[in-house]
Amino acid sequence: PLGKLMSLFNICSFSSLSHVFVHNPHLDTMKDDILYHFSLGTKTHDLPAMFGDVKFVCVGGSPWRMKSFIEYIAAELAMEDPKSDYPNICAGTDRYAMYKVGPVLSVSHGMGIPSIAIMLHELIKLLHHARCTDVTIIRIGTSGGIGLEPGTVVVTKQSVDATFLPKFEQVILGKTVVRNTDLDRSLAEELLQCSKELNQFETVIGNTMCTLDFYEGQARLDGAFCAYTEKDKQDYLNRAREAGVCNIEMESSVFAAMCKLSGLRAAVVCVTLLDRLKGDQLSSSHDVLHNYQQRPQILVGSYIKKQLKAKLQRS
Amino acid sequence: PLGKLMSLFNICSFSSLSHVFVHNPHLDTMKDDILYHFSLGTKTHDLPAMFGDVKFVCVGGSPWRMKSFIEYIAAELAMEDPKSDYPNICAGTDRYAMYKVGPVLSVSHGMGIPSIAIMLHELIKLLHHARCTDVTIIRIGTSGGIGLEPGTVVVTKQSVDATFLPKFEQVILGKTVVRNTDLDRSLAEELLQCSKELNQFETVIGNTMCTLDFYEGQARLDGAFCAYTEKDKQDYLNRAREAGVCNIEMESSVFAAMCKLSGLRAAVVCVTLLDRLKGDQLSSSHDVLHNYQQRPQILVGSYIKKQLKAKLQRS
Repeated sequence: PLGKLMSLFNICSFSSLSHVFVHNPHLDTMKDDILYHFSLGTKTHDLPAMFGDVKFVCVGGSPWRMKSFIEYIAAELAMEDPKSDYPNICAGTDRYAMYKVGPVLSVSHGMGIPSIAIMLHELIKLLHHARCTDVTIIRIGTSGGIGLEPGTVVVTKQSVDATFLPKFEQVILGKTVVRNTDLDRSLAEELLQCSKELNQFETVIGNTMCTLDFYEGQARLDGAFCAYTEKDKQDYLNRAREAGVCNIEMESSVFAAMCKLSGLRAAVVCVTLLDRLKGDQLSSSHDVLHNYQQRPQILVGSYIKKQLKAKLQRS
Repeated sequence: PLGKLMSLFNICSFSSLSHVFVHNPHLDTMKDDILYHFSLGTKTHDLPAMFGDVKFVCVGGSPWRMKSFIEYIAAELAMEDPKSDYPNICAGTDRYAMYKVGPVLSVSHGMGIPSIAIMLHELIKLLHHARCTDVTIIRIGTSGGIGLEPGTVVVTKQSVDATFLPKFEQVILGKTVVRNTDLDRSLAEELLQCSKELNQFETVIGNTMCTLDFYEGQARLDGAFCAYTEKDKQDYLNRAREAGVCNIEMESSVFAAMCKLSGLRAAVVCVTLLDRLKGDQLSSSHDVLHNYQQRPQILVGSYIKKQLKAKLQRS
């Protein structure tokens, strides 16, 4: 069944199992590695025992949403805790929240590139220390859509910057290094297929623009500062649309870049909460927004269930 | 007493009271302004009644720390709630936490420039809608020091970028706009004076480097990725030191830029948790780190108490 498992998890040909790669020779020389923002460490925690079986990692901005995701996935996989108790593994800190059910890990990452980057550095080291293999990682989030019906789910083809180029600029020792933001095309297609089978909401594959700011950085007219006109905004968003941008969020570029560097199979699945061509404020009712926010979770839950079923059948 | 109040709060000469400025003509045309990430709005909340008396805003990354700050300040000002109950004003969301005691507002901002920028856009609009005047805002945080004894508190003179230049680059409609990161010099001096009077820990005024990343962006050797040597790291940090950089954190530049634009008197007060010339990992004991983290809170608490006492005596 290993051959089948390999094809199932799209394992690289140079290894029988696909490991999570760190690229840092200094780590080997460290006696202890403190994952400070998780309040975990190699000396204080048995990371292989705690996390060695992880095959799916789902990340999202809001800690509440990531707790609700693990409850949802536990029910979907019929792995509910009889006490319905899903303790926060990172309870020693309030920087991130982390939950686990079976092979699924759910981690919050806050808002913006720097916040998710800290989490991903420590998550990649955690998966490495835990000797995890064949890990798929999916960001589930919210976004502003461009020319899409609110509630549409976008699976990201390429993450592009504010000039619509598919790159992430990382400053290292004061110099800018450009990184690739490609995501896994086959995983995106599999997620689209899942959505078709679910048939509950519209899902598209398209480019996602990742910005460093929610207001001026996304051409909103409702921030504390705004020195441009409605027409300037429309022109900018229409140029984005012409470049294939379906939605705008704030984490996908560094997520794509870091997952690619570490050999993680990665996807970004974000629901659009509004059509930015028609407005800026999130004025839909709480119930409507809540319903929209469930959609990436439902899609990814269905994908994980399908993968695990297939794995069981083939083993 | 108005004349004395004016000198006390350093009020601009063109106005009898210093207002919080938004720079956005579009806001006037909006019937309702939803401060989405605070779960507050002009239609749903009486912002002048809730916040009109705010004179001091303290912001920091961690929601726990900002709750602990409001408890501390309540005790310092002898304004404790008999039930010791300080409800989170933003309880409808988990993006930020907000607490208030008398004229002091305490708000968390998460980690990194994008996260604090979203908070500041909505905070500046909130203070504007609430018609607040003479507001002082202070970020209290943690940082990595350069060549300082761990536990030293740094009051920021200038916030500089990863190339040691005092500027913040904001991308608007895909184009880069450069903003000034000056902070209030007299406020920094007053805070330094307060620390001398307290005589509990070392405080210095110096430049603060603000980066978009905690690991590679701050020349750490312990991230998931690291393609440079210990010597490269030391060279970079020593160049930073020569440029007057005392500490490194991840929010000061956009904080300085946005507060300056909105006419808020602003300071950044961060404790150094380690000396980056000697290491990267936060390996001090929990008690030691906790003690360090109290220091900005103690300093700012003492400053606020002094200001309010002086105001009472002069009125």
